[in-house]
Amino acid sequence: MTKPLRLGIAGLGTVGAGVVKIVRQKANLLASRAGRPVVITAVSARNRDKDRGVNLTDYAWEDDPVALAKRDDVDVFVELMGGSDGPAKAATEAAIAAGKDVVTANKAMLAHHGQALALAAEDAGCVIGFEAAVAGGIPVIKALSEGLSGNNITRVMGVMNGTCNYILTRMQSAGLPYDVVFEEANQLGYLEADPTLDVGGIDAGHKLSLLAAIAFGSQVNFDAVELEGIERITIEDINHAADMGYRIKLLGVCQMTGRGLEQRMSPCLVPDNSPLGQLEGGTNMCVLEGDSVEQIVLRGPGAGEGPTASAVMGDVMDIARGFRMPVFGQPAAGLSKAKAAKAATPAPYYLRMALVDKPGSLAKVAAALGEAGVSIDRMRQYQHDDSTAPVLIVTHKTTRMALDAALLAMAKLDVLAGDPVALRIESV
Amino acid sequence: MTKPLRLGIAGLGTVGAGVVKIVRQKANLLASRAGRPVVITAVSARNRDKDRGVNLTDYAWEDDPVALAKRDDVDVFVELMGGSDGPAKAATEAAIAAGKDVVTANKAMLAHHGQALALAAEDAGCVIGFEAAVAGGIPVIKALSEGLSGNNITRVMGVMNGTCNYILTRMQSAGLPYDVVFEEANQLGYLEADPTLDVGGIDAGHKLSLLAAIAFGSQVNFDAVELEGIERITIEDINHAADMGYRIKLLGVCQMTGRGLEQRMSPCLVPDNSPLGQLEGGTNMCVLEGDSVEQIVLRGPGAGEGPTASAVMGDVMDIARGFRMPVFGQPAAGLSKAKAAKAATPAPYYLRMALVDKPGSLAKVAAALGEAGVSIDRMRQYQHDDSTAPVLIVTHKTTRMALDAALLAMAKLDVLAGDPVALRIESV
Repeated sequence: MTKPLRLGIAGLGTVGAGVVKIVRQKANLLASRAGRPVVITAVSARNRDKDRGVNLTDYAWEDDPVALAKRDDVDVFVELMGGSDGPAKAATEAAIAAGKDVVTANKAMLAHHGQALALAAEDAGCVIGFEAAVAGGIPVIKALSEGLSGNNITRVMGVMNGTCNYILTRMQSAGLPYDVVFEEANQLGYLEADPTLDVGGIDAGHKLSLLAAIAFGSQVNFDAVELEGIERITIEDINHAADMGYRIKLLGVCQMTGRGLEQRMSPCLVPDNSPLGQLEGGTNMCVLEGDSVEQIVLRGPGAGEGPTASAVMGDVMDIARGFRMPVFGQPAAGLSKAKAAKAATPAPYYLRMALVDKPGSLAKVAAALGEAGVSIDRMRQYQHDDSTAPVLIVTHKTTRMALDAALLAMAKLDVLAGDPVALRIESV
Repeated sequence: MTKPLRLGIAGLGTVGAGVVKIVRQKANLLASRAGRPVVITAVSARNRDKDRGVNLTDYAWEDDPVALAKRDDVDVFVELMGGSDGPAKAATEAAIAAGKDVVTANKAMLAHHGQALALAAEDAGCVIGFEAAVAGGIPVIKALSEGLSGNNITRVMGVMNGTCNYILTRMQSAGLPYDVVFEEANQLGYLEADPTLDVGGIDAGHKLSLLAAIAFGSQVNFDAVELEGIERITIEDINHAADMGYRIKLLGVCQMTGRGLEQRMSPCLVPDNSPLGQLEGGTNMCVLEGDSVEQIVLRGPGAGEGPTASAVMGDVMDIARGFRMPVFGQPAAGLSKAKAAKAATPAPYYLRMALVDKPGSLAKVAAALGEAGVSIDRMRQYQHDDSTAPVLIVTHKTTRMALDAALLAMAKLDVLAGDPVALRIESV
């Protein structure tokens, strides 16, 4: 095991450059820990001439990442290009076909093609490491698939999109409306080119679907994630929640229920004194629950050059040390096709709506809830100047299914001005 | 790799029984994750007749753990007896001599004999897993030695003795003095047979010395841990700290400094709004800092049947999957003998003392601090009825060395009633 492990890196953005720096600057440390040198032999990116602040002259250059992935002098294909399809997928497939191990930070690719890639990799005897794809620098994949492998995992939760958490905590601390903070985040460069990936919950949903596959031994099924973004959260929602002792977080939850596998990524209310409630800014948090370990909470930076490169290197070092296991912790061919349980677990809900200001509106809303079997814990109508009355309702525990029936009935009543906002109150 | 992995378990207390339960109840899950069955072939404990709530009739019984460790039908010797020497050490050595892998929860044994055992194990081609020895169910060894292996670790901190954290948080929440809460903890069965192991910081110090070895590639050196227990913390200290926005925690800190490796386990003041400050009851927390990853915080149960058995099984599963690496993450033969840096990193300190109530006492104390180069940030003398005056001083940043010089000078002044309490204010 003293033969060097040779990396080919495709994608030299922030994370790629960070990986190059670590391999160059910590060569002795890595060799001592891995029992063999870890070196880079070739790199690839779109623009060869860009100054990335790292010296690339020692490495072969490939314009085409597929060519990089197939090189004889590459043992591990490090995919840091991103994108669910296109060059990232083509090069990853080429690497596996050539018998190379893969390390990737690409949650979108794995969320959409994880099962097919895992089958191909396992057939070819290759591993795919994707620690960097979930929760930045937090070694959550390792904790879940290795550290807690003696557990029946009962629930996994996470705040895994730093941009959304930044927006929500900044709204609260500065008392600013969503649009203003969204624009701030945009100018700070926090948002993806397509901001819906962040604020629509898609990026975090990708991550959740990967954790769910490991936790429950089921095939990745991103399409089954119930997705809801933070775009409709108002500063009033945040203030109402705070008054009741809650914070609003874009929270991912997956758990196996009697009705199937539940995967939700949506804004939720969590107690303000819980670790999740206290999470501020761009930091990520994952909560892992198992029948033996009870609850483990992991907290750390969710993005950035150093933290994400640290996660990439964790996977590289595992490969250098000869650690090999199936992509999702169990052979992909044996992963279940878990039935998707939509909104099965009951919880209290926070409802905010605007009612047309005419006699009987509130009674009709209350009746619609009651008829759907949703009982009300608290209800409050706020003072208002215009023709619509803001109403806040907290329900007792109910299923999302019952709540959706109530919301559908309300929509037919001609008393709502706009769509209500319904946020789950999660027990964490 | 479809041959079963055969465990021999020595020690059938809470944790041992927990491991037996997991192996029996989750056989299919473990086999699917490990790619091979995990079975128990033999067990050993002091008393064969005790009812442990688990069925042991399928397993061979050995009265002597050394005999168990050598059995041909045992691949992994699982040492859950405890004790730094005696049968635990003898059986572990026998297992290694017989070429068996070892999984242990024994922090005392590794803190005292870790280097020798690691050398022996690596010579024999064996691994020693000790995830369960540090911070209960939290997979912190794995996170540090594998997940963060691309980092120069800069600092590791931890609250790793649940009993001490229970005592300190209970004193604060109930406003009760140390002696009363200590007795409560005793009656709840939270304390070791020798309570000094807990409240003297020894148990937590053992754990810290293991983390330091991994973090800094140095030989375990428990003797170099600066140890201070919580026995002298009063409810007044806790209240004073709270008034200033701090909590008192038995905090372990290790970091490599220009003067050598600092290892401290002592009651410290930490900000009450930090994750460490907010940690309540028996929960543990580890903070890992690296040059790339910045800061990772891990939180979870520090003890108990399920969580500790979960950590034992994490190690067992690694072995079942064929993951093999040196005991402390790098070959033991190459670990450095880091110079011990005593109290090198400066910090502000909290000082509480009782002064003999005569004119000039306070001035003399202030002068002693000044002459040692310790400057005062805040000083307060409290109202009092008896002949000694309680005084609280918060210093500016100083080294423990300068502070000790000042305390020594004070002790010669004939103005102190009893020894002062000096607590570091740690920036976390």
